[in-house]
Amino acid sequence: MSTVIKNGTIVTADLTYKADVKIEGGVITEIGPDLSGDETLDATGCYVMPGGIDPHVHLEMPFMGTYSADDFESGTRAGLAGGTTMVVDFCLPDPGQSLLEALARWDNKSTRANADYSFHMAITSWDERIFNEMQTIVQDKGINTFKHFMAYKGALMVNDDEMFASFSRCAELGALPLVHAENGDVVAAMSAKLLAEGNDGPEAHAYSRPAEVEGEATNRAIMLADMAGVPLYVVHTSCEQAHEAIRRARQKGMRVYGEPLIQHLTLDESEYFDKDWDHAARRVMSPPFRNKQHQDSLWAGLQSGSLSCVATDHCAFTTEQKRFGIGNFMRIPNGTGGLEDRLPMLWTYGVATGRLTMNEFVAVTSTNIAKILNIYPKKGAILVGADADIVVWDPKRTKTISAASQQSAIDYNVFEGKTVNGLPRFTLTRGLVAIEESTIKTREGHGKFVKREPYPAVSKALSTWKELVSPRKVERTGIPASGV
Amino acid sequence: MSTVIKNGTIVTADLTYKADVKIEGGVITEIGPDLSGDETLDATGCYVMPGGIDPHVHLEMPFMGTYSADDFESGTRAGLAGGTTMVVDFCLPDPGQSLLEALARWDNKSTRANADYSFHMAITSWDERIFNEMQTIVQDKGINTFKHFMAYKGALMVNDDEMFASFSRCAELGALPLVHAENGDVVAAMSAKLLAEGNDGPEAHAYSRPAEVEGEATNRAIMLADMAGVPLYVVHTSCEQAHEAIRRARQKGMRVYGEPLIQHLTLDESEYFDKDWDHAARRVMSPPFRNKQHQDSLWAGLQSGSLSCVATDHCAFTTEQKRFGIGNFMRIPNGTGGLEDRLPMLWTYGVATGRLTMNEFVAVTSTNIAKILNIYPKKGAILVGADADIVVWDPKRTKTISAASQQSAIDYNVFEGKTVNGLPRFTLTRGLVAIEESTIKTREGHGKFVKREPYPAVSKALSTWKELVSPRKVERTGIPASGV
Amino acid sequence: MSTVIKNGTIVTADLTYKADVKIEGGVITEIGPDLSGDETLDATGCYVMPGGIDPHVHLEMPFMGTYSADDFESGTRAGLAGGTTMVVDFCLPDPGQSLLEALARWDNKSTRANADYSFHMAITSWDERIFNEMQTIVQDKGINTFKHFMAYKGALMVNDDEMFASFSRCAELGALPLVHAENGDVVAAMSAKLLAEGNDGPEAHAYSRPAEVEGEATNRAIMLADMAGVPLYVVHTSCEQAHEAIRRARQKGMRVYGEPLIQHLTLDESEYFDKDWDHAARRVMSPPFRNKQHQDSLWAGLQSGSLSCVATDHCAFTTEQKRFGIGNFMRIPNGTGGLEDRLPMLWTYGVATGRLTMNEFVAVTSTNIAKILNIYPKKGAILVGADADIVVWDPKRTKTISAASQQSAIDYNVFEGKTVNGLPRFTLTRGLVAIEESTIKTREGHGKFVKREPYPAVSKALSTWKELVSPRKVERTGIPASGV
Amino acid sequence: MSTVIKNGTIVTADLTYKADVKIEGGVITEIGPDLSGDETLDATGCYVMPGGIDPHVHLEMPFMGTYSADDFESGTRAGLAGGTTMVVDFCLPDPGQSLLEALARWDNKSTRANADYSFHMAITSWDERIFNEMQTIVQDKGINTFKHFMAYKGALMVNDDEMFASFSRCAELGALPLVHAENGDVVAAMSAKLLAEGNDGPEAHAYSRPAEVEGEATNRAIMLADMAGVPLYVVHTSCEQAHEAIRRARQKGMRVYGEPLIQHLTLDESEYFDKDWDHAARRVMSPPFRNKQHQDSLWAGLQSGSLSCVATDHCAFTTEQKRFGIGNFMRIPNGTGGLEDRLPMLWTYGVATGRLTMNEFVAVTSTNIAKILNIYPKKGAILVGADADIVVWDPKRTKTISAASQQSAIDYNVFEGKTVNGLPRFTLTRGLVAIEESTIKTREGHGKFVKREPYPAVSKALSTWKELVSPRKVERTGIPASGV
Repeated sequence: MSTVIKNGTIVTADLTYKADVKIEGGVITEIGPDLSGDETLDATGCYVMPGGIDPHVHLEMPFMGTYSADDFESGTRAGLAGGTTMVVDFCLPDPGQSLLEALARWDNKSTRANADYSFHMAITSWDERIFNEMQTIVQDKGINTFKHFMAYKGALMVNDDEMFASFSRCAELGALPLVHAENGDVVAAMSAKLLAEGNDGPEAHAYSRPAEVEGEATNRAIMLADMAGVPLYVVHTSCEQAHEAIRRARQKGMRVYGEPLIQHLTLDESEYFDKDWDHAARRVMSPPFRNKQHQDSLWAGLQSGSLSCVATDHCAFTTEQKRFGIGNFMRIPNGTGGLEDRLPMLWTYGVATGRLTMNEFVAVTSTNIAKILNIYPKKGAILVGADADIVVWDPKRTKTISAASQQSAIDYNVFEGKTVNGLPRFTLTRGLVAIEESTIKTREGHGKFVKREPYPAVSKALSTWKELVSPRKVERTGIPASGV
Repeated sequence: MSTVIKNGTIVTADLTYKADVKIEGGVITEIGPDLSGDETLDATGCYVMPGGIDPHVHLEMPFMGTYSADDFESGTRAGLAGGTTMVVDFCLPDPGQSLLEALARWDNKSTRANADYSFHMAITSWDERIFNEMQTIVQDKGINTFKHFMAYKGALMVNDDEMFASFSRCAELGALPLVHAENGDVVAAMSAKLLAEGNDGPEAHAYSRPAEVEGEATNRAIMLADMAGVPLYVVHTSCEQAHEAIRRARQKGMRVYGEPLIQHLTLDESEYFDKDWDHAARRVMSPPFRNKQHQDSLWAGLQSGSLSCVATDHCAFTTEQKRFGIGNFMRIPNGTGGLEDRLPMLWTYGVATGRLTMNEFVAVTSTNIAKILNIYPKKGAILVGADADIVVWDPKRTKTISAASQQSAIDYNVFEGKTVNGLPRFTLTRGLVAIEESTIKTREGHGKFVKREPYPAVSKALSTWKELVSPRKVERTGIPASGV
Repeated sequence: MSTVIKNGTIVTADLTYKADVKIEGGVITEIGPDLSGDETLDATGCYVMPGGIDPHVHLEMPFMGTYSADDFESGTRAGLAGGTTMVVDFCLPDPGQSLLEALARWDNKSTRANADYSFHMAITSWDERIFNEMQTIVQDKGINTFKHFMAYKGALMVNDDEMFASFSRCAELGALPLVHAENGDVVAAMSAKLLAEGNDGPEAHAYSRPAEVEGEATNRAIMLADMAGVPLYVVHTSCEQAHEAIRRARQKGMRVYGEPLIQHLTLDESEYFDKDWDHAARRVMSPPFRNKQHQDSLWAGLQSGSLSCVATDHCAFTTEQKRFGIGNFMRIPNGTGGLEDRLPMLWTYGVATGRLTMNEFVAVTSTNIAKILNIYPKKGAILVGADADIVVWDPKRTKTISAASQQSAIDYNVFEGKTVNGLPRFTLTRGLVAIEESTIKTREGHGKFVKREPYPAVSKALSTWKELVSPRKVERTGIPASGV
Repeated sequence: MSTVIKNGTIVTADLTYKADVKIEGGVITEIGPDLSGDETLDATGCYVMPGGIDPHVHLEMPFMGTYSADDFESGTRAGLAGGTTMVVDFCLPDPGQSLLEALARWDNKSTRANADYSFHMAITSWDERIFNEMQTIVQDKGINTFKHFMAYKGALMVNDDEMFASFSRCAELGALPLVHAENGDVVAAMSAKLLAEGNDGPEAHAYSRPAEVEGEATNRAIMLADMAGVPLYVVHTSCEQAHEAIRRARQKGMRVYGEPLIQHLTLDESEYFDKDWDHAARRVMSPPFRNKQHQDSLWAGLQSGSLSCVATDHCAFTTEQKRFGIGNFMRIPNGTGGLEDRLPMLWTYGVATGRLTMNEFVAVTSTNIAKILNIYPKKGAILVGADADIVVWDPKRTKTISAASQQSAIDYNVFEGKTVNGLPRFTLTRGLVAIEESTIKTREGHGKFVKREPYPAVSKALSTWKELVSPRKVERTGIPASGV
């Protein structure tokens, strides 16, 4: 059984050319002119691109006795509907919990996934068991990334010496540390102060975590990674301050990646000042939306390469769940949607405006993260042998985003009313046509866990360099006897 | 009884002019041509400048059951010999100790001082008593500065929420927080690793605290101060990374001051690679000496105003004390001398080279810190009514620095062998001629504590601004009923 | 005949204290408590500050066969009404004209001045005569500053080798070069293109000179000054790009000063989009108004010291004159007013908001430029012996700015409708009470030319440094015979 | 007739994998396991990479009545010996000369090339003919890049309005402007001054063109390109100042590429202080070698992506030719060699140290420039259909660089004595094995001109963006009648 995508223009991170694509057994088996197969998908007028990879989602995330509304089924369905063929979720052990136990829970949740997925493992506390289990996670479980929360004090947050220990362990294992970079101590103190002063609305969430607070934490994480001799990936880089810290590191040759979210690229802080509490609360996420200058900074980062990937931090809570926080913004569940809208929104505001080339679009939505996660070219590529995770992108299709017609399980959409130009004609997950224009053909449980090997080239190079410049003992003779 | 300094050129932070200076009762009573008095000091060919103020010294500092070798007597004597007429020491409570009890100890130690002095109060732990005592310290004890150690983990170090609480308290009290900015967690972890790897020599001290580690902490302290709405003073800024953080803050309008040491301006890291253990160990201080590019950065900071004051962190340990650390660099007492050499070294390497004007020399050795500490123009000025803390500076006097001829109680000098051009002809402390060329005429116990008022103009302005831009609650009607 | 200012608080660039001020013969003769004199000015509730110095005005400037509307009489009257007691105008030789001849013209125009003034000499072309006359200008005519226009191609503009030659000459003479920094080639080309495309309105003036164009020229002038070994003063720094270039230079230790205008600090580009052609045209000046982020940058520069002085570039053209440019924005005379409003506007938006301290206000409106121009403390100071150019500032006086009530000769005011808090109770020019609240008591012809000596301390220091690091020939023996 | 490269590891800009490569008719026809063909090249233990592309060479360049010593034959032979399979030379019209006439000359010179080549066209003067010919050059002659010299005053140098006109023309034609960025006015003036002061040796060449002078010109060219709405390529970026300007532009989203040379990455200014005149003169090139900090900056640029390509500016003059400049450094022909050594040196100092990954090595030596020049994937790729320009890289081969054994026609080598690890086992130019270890098998005249199409994706995107943000006329009614 073979499928051929015909008459399209292949667009990858570095090539644009006309060719057909043949798929057999879920992988690409031939690329060239005039191919034929059992099934034909017409890509006339379309771009045939690697399916999007969203490196930052939280599906069915436990929260205060309930869960985020999109699970692996609806979440991956929403992703496919928007051209995203793989997601990476975060396995979140309770502080003190075994990483392996937590992973078992996440394995259970993901069985209904419609598209491929992988996990980042979070380090939420530190002890010898965790130190040891990290090796198992990397070497046996196919996970080469560890997430660290510098915020959420009293819950997921780890402090500097824990991070430094974990980063150092990552260096040994060829794994990549990730950070949520906000200074949790300051956020906690300022939140308490705001609440005490009567600032209990959703806007206080934004007040409690200014850009400087994110910039500081980003800068700190970079130093820790540099000292540990390991690359670093900064999730949801939302502001110039954090981006500046990343740029400053990179211009010293440090290996640091930044990940802006599509929300931060296109929405701003004025949302929190909306007179409708629900409207504002639905936009509560961390970091919060910023202003126009921060947006400009993020776009420029994508253009120049100082930022690497566009993600969503998709963590969908219903309006009902958001209302937990009435009277106390600290109880508003953090998170917004975006999985379905990431590609269309980035295309509309990025490619159609001329800010990004189509190749850059593919790079920042798919290929770059595949390389960083060391799963390229299995994912993120249109190459013979690659998984047939493909989006056939129709730049003429248009729609106005609306919760009413979305796949996500929640009752609103932060991009409500935005008109996008550019949508999938087809989305294929390992060869399966899951989306055909507005028709959903996803297959529950089709998605598989994607194993990822440690020691990507950048990690190896950095280790070589760090060894070369490591401290050297001064050899001395005639050291005096101790004075004590 | 009056004294007149005749025939000199007065040099202040903003003026250079010929005039005589008359002193009565320890203060300047007249400035003008052709003055006469009971005693005449000939300043022909000399510059009459405000005496130096060293904002950063540790005299008779307790350490592992012993004390740093220079006490208030020898320390202030050394200072006067080099043209410094006031020092600010650090009162260091043991963690948990009452600030007032610690202050009583420091009051006792300082009775023999030859020159005026003041104290910074250190915040080495945090609880309600300390919160309350800070008010007493500021309002009753004449201390408007609080020092915070971000290094020395397990000893003096405070963490981010303690610092943020203390900074916020400073804002309320009109006081200025100071920081020793190095990431103590990282220093501790890297020190342990170095030692475990056999790197036990003094050079490992430098390896354990790279410039990035200082830069990070500086950046973090700045954010904390910005969030707390208070200016910040960063002691012993030694490197471009820290200086960059300070510049970056200042260019956003933040009120941040940086203090390079004369050692970091003129000595470099190669000292630690000396084959003589004693030579290297005598240079052990935190932050360690850096390389030439960092020196260039610091000089440029003095030229441009992004750095404010030159200090010494004078904390003199004898060679015998340094040898506590044979076999374990972590046990080498941190500290070097410099009190006597600060002005001559800065003149020689700064003014004589053309990097600084004479007025800038006065600004960075005296006037700027007097303003920051809110004791200007009592100190740091040649004005009628100001204390007659004066150095009559002879730009033709020269010497080669040597431990053999110094006032400090220690047996070596980190500037040994450097030839300086420019030395005091006279140093006066509140009118008393304490130094006349090589002759020491200091009077033990002459020095008095200098009280300092809170709320300098910059603090008030910053408070006004922070109030103006403080978070505003969004007024909403029709907030939905809670979902819970 | 003596005058005493009683019961006020003296505010200078570095001091705030209560004292009376006695004036005799146009100079300050005594400062202290309880002074008395023939005339008493009550300063109760007021700040007694050095009168403002506006380093950048164009009075009776020749333009297309007419002149800017404010001459030395009305211009200095407007200045005094707003607390400014000295102005520096630009002597503009026609290209090729003798500097001395041009100066004679300016001397003639300034005879009716109500307040003291000085001139910057413009270098608008280059030849041996100009090279030689520069020495006369500096040594005989009391002018130590030379202005260079990098814009106004085909008129005042000089190119890089002319500037470099002139800057080098300034270095020899101890003079300070000034630049109007916009790339004139680009402005000319873009203006022509805009006009050709039908963009003929005042907004096209702004389009034709973006911030990048100013930033580039600023950066270029800085390099030229660095290579010539001379400090540099950049007039009307209006944007982050130019400010960034200045900061970048300063952080390398270069001696560069930036001068924002009160207009750029408080008004923005939206003025050019006004539907009323007159409204927009009246705001046409070079550089044009910028947006909010540029304003923030300028304010931060004043706070941090990376920008030095606030000026106006006062060059008042009437609406009638502005209308020369109907149908062709390139013919709209460049210039706005501001002399009368500089101090009240800066106080209102700077001091009252907490952005600046009162001392900083004095520094940036008066003292800093007096130091840069080497006329401190004759001007810019409240010191015995200083000229009694004093403003007694009443922080309680308020008004709404209006052309209807202004001293300037033009028929509008770019600050129309702004309410200011803080106005002069008295303005004194060399002891003469020229302004008493709303009453104008100026005396035509009272103003005198202020001579300025070359070689201020910074110039001398820089020359010493540049000599120290100047290129050294490598001594070689055995150089081969030439191959030719 | 087919050739198969067997048992190697293919390394491209984004992939590393084991596969054989089959070549037929000069192009790659198959990539996969177990291929066979008529001829087999054993790549066991080797990396099979796209051949290097040197975007910056001057072969047989006319100079003072003679020519640079390497012509297209020896130059491309040297390139192939070091793994470089394509060069781009600069067609240099005399000022005022027809571009087409100049191109005819270059076409004549290149007939003996051993490897493929292309030309950049230089704009050395400006008039209507040149404006018109640019279109022919782009549309008919296959050249999409135009070089502009900001240095070499009185010869190749163009000024700002010429550059702006040419850049604007490039924007229209979809071509890319290149700049040699040094301020020619300043270099000329400083050179004359140095010579007048007796500084006539090769070191004065370096003194005459400091890093600030290059930084300024780079910054200026970037602004011109931004205003013209066109990307920019900066050749031989040698210093932090120029790199900083590029980074600053890129972080605003501007499309700017920087090209460090292998010489600037690995050699420093101390070469000019050599006591041997010949040694120093042989290193004379523009920009000159810089110091260690500049090298660090360039390496970091390659790591972070702020710099794009490594070139050589190969322009080989013999010692005899260099000696034209005895007694006058301005007459020393500018240029050094490097074509043969670029890849081995970069591998040794970049990949072997861990600064760069192998993929990054390929990117900066080949793939990036192929993309920028819009010839990817014909060149710079290991893909089916790509030209078989391939280097089979043996990381175990080693040699010590020496003029005695080099292919270049000159009598010295600036890398003399450096030991490199990593050399070609085979170099193939369009399928022809030109190099087999130390054996040279080049075929004179084998090389062909490579045509390049305009309008690469980045140009198109930038045009779209610039159109989107272009100036909009304010529509006004009731514009007053002109005052004139």
